[in-house]
Amino acid sequence: MADSVPSGTPDPSRAPDSSRAPDSSRRSERSRRAIHDAALALVGEVGYAKTTVEAIAARAGVGKQTIYRWWPSRAAVLLDAFLDLTERAAQVAEDGAGATGIPDTGDLEADLKRVLRGTVDELNDPAFEAPSRALAAEGIVDPALGAEFVRRLLEPQLQLYVDRLRAAQAAGGTGGDQAAGVRPDLDPRIALELLVGPLAHRWLLRTAPLTHAYADTIVDYALYGLAPRP
Amino acid sequence: MADSVPSGTPDPSRAPDSSRAPDSSRRSERSRRAIHDAALALVGEVGYAKTTVEAIAARAGVGKQTIYRWWPSRAAVLLDAFLDLTERAAQVAEDGAGATGIPDTGDLEADLKRVLRGTVDELNDPAFEAPSRALAAEGIVDPALGAEFVRRLLEPQLQLYVDRLRAAQAAGGTGGDQAAGVRPDLDPRIALELLVGPLAHRWLLRTAPLTHAYADTIVDYALYGLAPRP
Repeated sequence: MADSVPSGTPDPSRAPDSSRAPDSSRRSERSRRAIHDAALALVGEVGYAKTTVEAIAARAGVGKQTIYRWWPSRAAVLLDAFLDLTERAAQVAEDGAGATGIPDTGDLEADLKRVLRGTVDELNDPAFEAPSRALAAEGIVDPALGAEFVRRLLEPQLQLYVDRLRAAQAAGGTGGDQAAGVRPDLDPRIALELLVGPLAHRWLLRTAPLTHAYADTIVDYALYGLAPRP
Repeated sequence: MADSVPSGTPDPSRAPDSSRAPDSSRRSERSRRAIHDAALALVGEVGYAKTTVEAIAARAGVGKQTIYRWWPSRAAVLLDAFLDLTERAAQVAEDGAGATGIPDTGDLEADLKRVLRGTVDELNDPAFEAPSRALAAEGIVDPALGAEFVRRLLEPQLQLYVDRLRAAQAAGGTGGDQAAGVRPDLDPRIALELLVGPLAHRWLLRTAPLTHAYADTIVDYALYGLAPRP
């Protein structure tokens, strides 16, 4: 049976207590999903402050102890729920092709615009907005939760940019398109922040609308710089 | 008397009820400052959730009604307190010279590095960190407060970058240093986000340390682009 499970199905082994209850993994998986859905729905409807473990348990139809057996806090529930949501969305976006990471068509500018446009769509998606904002806001004032959010969710995503920028540096060095490449002396881990930083800033602080045109402009400005090219 | 008040003294007219109580403006000013200090101290010590109007009033030695007469909510108190703190810090930083805005020495790269290093210092200053994080976090989940934060605090600061980048565009067009200038076709309101976005992203999400070296690198990458220069 396990081999026929589609890749879109969450892995029950991610539930922290699956090792304790190997015989009830399907029921555990149902409960885990119900708890995730309840946490995401609640935070969107009533905000983080009122998304208590009690409220999540009541909405999911489980006992508080079920939640506390698996997670140490509501923040941990919400982070897992959000990671689950993100994984499911990524699988849908992949159309079953199984590809991960940033595409490498050999055209860095086009690849980055495609990815940043996708990020804009995700940030503007109501299903993501409430839990994303709730988690980001909590992480900003709670260093432990923020570190967990960065370690488990953000940094793996940023690493995809590092990989793509490194590939562009390597291609540039072996005869690739210099104009759309990356200077070999740049640190890709810093360079990516010129791409994701502006989007995050605009989205988090709502300074102006997040659009595809904005994403394209950020890629253009970041790749070719603000200073005139000689 | 008003003329001899040093520029570092906050303007009592900023207290919302000063028009109602012209005879008690000095006492009002003392109360207002005590309320600001209490709000900033509390949010740093116990976090935003516990920084209630009751707690601020108790710490400031005023009645709750005094606060509600002047401000509609604790968020409004904290925003005013933070604006006051920012103005006082800016006045100290100016050394009484009265200068505002981003310096224009004719060397855009040096001017931007100076300003971004100053921003790094401010973001790393414990006096700013707690209230800044509390306000940013609340603004992320509360659109009305976020809009107020952006309108009163952030956008005026961003406008200083617009002014400096426009000056660089104008100087470039009249024989200025092209290498450290700004392309004439760029939108300065978007271009500035490549400078402030990465710093805000790194600070808000604590992905990595905020240092002067980082600020310098962001300016270099933003001005000269990630792609190789032909």
